[in-house]
Amino acid sequence: MSDTIPYKIYLSESEIPTAWYNVRADMKNKPAPLLNPASGKPMTASELEKVFCSELVSQELNDTDAWIEIPSEIRDFYKMYRPSPLVRAYCLEEALGTPAHIYYKFEGNNTSGSHKLNSSIAQAYYAKKQGLKGVTTETGAGQWGTALSMACAYFGLDCQVYMVKVSYEQKPFRREVMRTYGAKVTPSPSMTTEVGRKINAEFPGTTGSLGCAISEAVEAAVSQEGYRYVLGSVLSQVLLHQTVIGLETKTALDKYNITPDIIIGCAGGGSNLGGLISPFAGEIIRGEKDYQIIAVEPASCPSLTRGKYVYDFCDTGKVCPLAKMYTLGSGYIPAPNHAGGLRYHGMSSIVSQLYDDGIIEARSVKQTEVFEAAQKFARIEGILPAPESSHAIKVAIDEALKCKETGEEKNIVFGLTGTGYFDMVAYQSFNDGTMKDYVPTDEEIEASLAKCPKVDA
Amino acid sequence: MSDTIPYKIYLSESEIPTAWYNVRADMKNKPAPLLNPASGKPMTASELEKVFCSELVSQELNDTDAWIEIPSEIRDFYKMYRPSPLVRAYCLEEALGTPAHIYYKFEGNNTSGSHKLNSSIAQAYYAKKQGLKGVTTETGAGQWGTALSMACAYFGLDCQVYMVKVSYEQKPFRREVMRTYGAKVTPSPSMTTEVGRKINAEFPGTTGSLGCAISEAVEAAVSQEGYRYVLGSVLSQVLLHQTVIGLETKTALDKYNITPDIIIGCAGGGSNLGGLISPFAGEIIRGEKDYQIIAVEPASCPSLTRGKYVYDFCDTGKVCPLAKMYTLGSGYIPAPNHAGGLRYHGMSSIVSQLYDDGIIEARSVKQTEVFEAAQKFARIEGILPAPESSHAIKVAIDEALKCKETGEEKNIVFGLTGTGYFDMVAYQSFNDGTMKDYVPTDEEIEASLAKCPKVDA
Repeated sequence: MSDTIPYKIYLSESEIPTAWYNVRADMKNKPAPLLNPASGKPMTASELEKVFCSELVSQELNDTDAWIEIPSEIRDFYKMYRPSPLVRAYCLEEALGTPAHIYYKFEGNNTSGSHKLNSSIAQAYYAKKQGLKGVTTETGAGQWGTALSMACAYFGLDCQVYMVKVSYEQKPFRREVMRTYGAKVTPSPSMTTEVGRKINAEFPGTTGSLGCAISEAVEAAVSQEGYRYVLGSVLSQVLLHQTVIGLETKTALDKYNITPDIIIGCAGGGSNLGGLISPFAGEIIRGEKDYQIIAVEPASCPSLTRGKYVYDFCDTGKVCPLAKMYTLGSGYIPAPNHAGGLRYHGMSSIVSQLYDDGIIEARSVKQTEVFEAAQKFARIEGILPAPESSHAIKVAIDEALKCKETGEEKNIVFGLTGTGYFDMVAYQSFNDGTMKDYVPTDEEIEASLAKCPKVDA
Repeated sequence: MSDTIPYKIYLSESEIPTAWYNVRADMKNKPAPLLNPASGKPMTASELEKVFCSELVSQELNDTDAWIEIPSEIRDFYKMYRPSPLVRAYCLEEALGTPAHIYYKFEGNNTSGSHKLNSSIAQAYYAKKQGLKGVTTETGAGQWGTALSMACAYFGLDCQVYMVKVSYEQKPFRREVMRTYGAKVTPSPSMTTEVGRKINAEFPGTTGSLGCAISEAVEAAVSQEGYRYVLGSVLSQVLLHQTVIGLETKTALDKYNITPDIIIGCAGGGSNLGGLISPFAGEIIRGEKDYQIIAVEPASCPSLTRGKYVYDFCDTGKVCPLAKMYTLGSGYIPAPNHAGGLRYHGMSSIVSQLYDDGIIEARSVKQTEVFEAAQKFARIEGILPAPESSHAIKVAIDEALKCKETGEEKNIVFGLTGTGYFDMVAYQSFNDGTMKDYVPTDEEIEASLAKCPKVDA
């Protein structure tokens, strides 16, 4: 431990980024546009503004400006929990006996328990600025709903969350955190929307799905005066806001002259991964540097490693625009993996394009090996990680052990997106030895992919 | 927000204290010694060493050395989550419209969720150094058990936790965190100890109590080769370890030339309060400075404000030494207040003596007004506080509002000891409007105090 690098590299508040980095401006192959499912033509701003806040639509469609200024009101909020620390995992290195240097950017030290707050506060700010009364959203695991509730409480906006019914019942504590922040939480499918009533009639006793909750939240947004719908991942605007993670990481590394060899992040919808890697991917694209970037996904929901790069529906209810992305098909139902945040059938269009261009690689890992890594990390580094984040931990440990074999002193950086305090049911099943792995067959994936819309764009 | 003081004052790792401050060395009236209940004489080191680790016994009995060096192994662990930030509550000040400046020392940013880790890592270190196999303890709400599990995992010690049965059943997530860290968690009263079997036979179906769990943990420690019993509050050694809170707070304040006018902490067993205020109380005792120090306790368990300063049993099972302290009587059963960490019948002997000497004052607050403050704080400052910590928030807000009346620009500092992620049942009862207040009658307290042992010391 004679190294001069501290356990935690903290930046000062003046080093919080003043602009988000829009990697699309530098990408040679731009992500494909969202399409109107009816016309098959690119969605226009005015079409999108019926559902989304205007300023956010403009960010969603912007692929020319590399830097987008962060308003001071958002930066003031960021100061309450940012800059987040870049941690040198000295204890983990020692326990593994690896010559590698391991660093993680820890985004879990806020009440939402994850990086989601970086985007929710931005989205709430633009909604407030537009003079809206409130926003609607869906939540599955609950991290996004919590983050949005916090942001809305701060700006005095009404917040309506449609929570997948099975989560609403099984995760009452997540629900109570949202209620404490003043959000109205409705189990989905509900009887308060047309689509909800329809689904309840068609499938009595259904415990809901994310796709259904999205449809309800969108209906609630467009049917109330002064409301818009907001989303916590997948969209380019969300990835944009999450670049504060990567920008701070880069500043902290530069401060100590550390050049990462490998950068690792877990990938569900792709926003935290994209946010972490954007500044580094930009350097690769501009030919300035080279890094190995690894996206880690669950073996039970392997959109990058086993999906196809095609246009698909973003939701099972098929009310949203079509997006070109690595997908398993919008009807794909992943096994009940505990990493709720990584169970989306598709992937951010930016991450998909970077993957297709060979700028990032992808790896899938099984649930039980993820929890083995999570338990090890908790005991050695003292932080109980979220199941999602633990996918990145697993691959970071794998790479550090490879360095032990080869003797290489690589710098490994990974994103630790959140804490697992609300995921103890998952840990219990691991502690009890009842956790199972599930890997879909090729036939299952092919059958699901066969239902993707036929679009020639 | 033009102030040059940042939202969060972070110290560097080199500013983590190198020694704990032992306020007893400076106290003119020393806390009264622990007594052997059989002989009525002060407990000797060799008597205490049958139950406690030797080095910790020596700390417990030390009232001459003002500074006790922190071993480098403990400081290395501290570096994983310390220094903790001293936060300027700009948003709360603005929301209250107060000219006061409010600061809080936030100890919740670690997986145990509270300050408890500061002492558990020290106690585990000394147990390891003594060559022990493991330690035993009791836990009620679960913060201490979690902190001890983490510390034992780090040093490779066996950890046996007796968890009050009603908590074990109602807080399965706390239990799973401890299991994830490798601890063996047993619901108390159990059938694995003599005292547990006796209590189960006498009171079939009992859901347990902290007093019973203490008795079981002590029996388990003395009946196993290579084990000792450890405790998370009340004892002077625990308060000593917690002085890292106060020392860091003082360093951070000094860095910006801030002199606190009021220092506020919640008080259960007294260790976090004592740790926060020790360096400041030392200055008062030595005649160097003057501060207003306020201990805040629940109206349902008002040991300082309505108890008596006498010798009493530390546990309901009466297996521990007698301590002179402000107490409500060891048989006092507080109403089911949700601040589990503040339900102890007595108070640290150091805090009791400082209170008796008029160096600190005390205030009691009701549960519903505490949760009103907690909700307000969560929405404005973005941190969901533990019910215990929210007692300090309530009084800090009260004092800031007094400043609004008078126009005084006081500096108010309070200890935010932890987060409330595992206390959502309490928040739910507040959100639902079903939370009740309870204040004991004078007769109830007198009846309980009448059962204190008659000791003339």
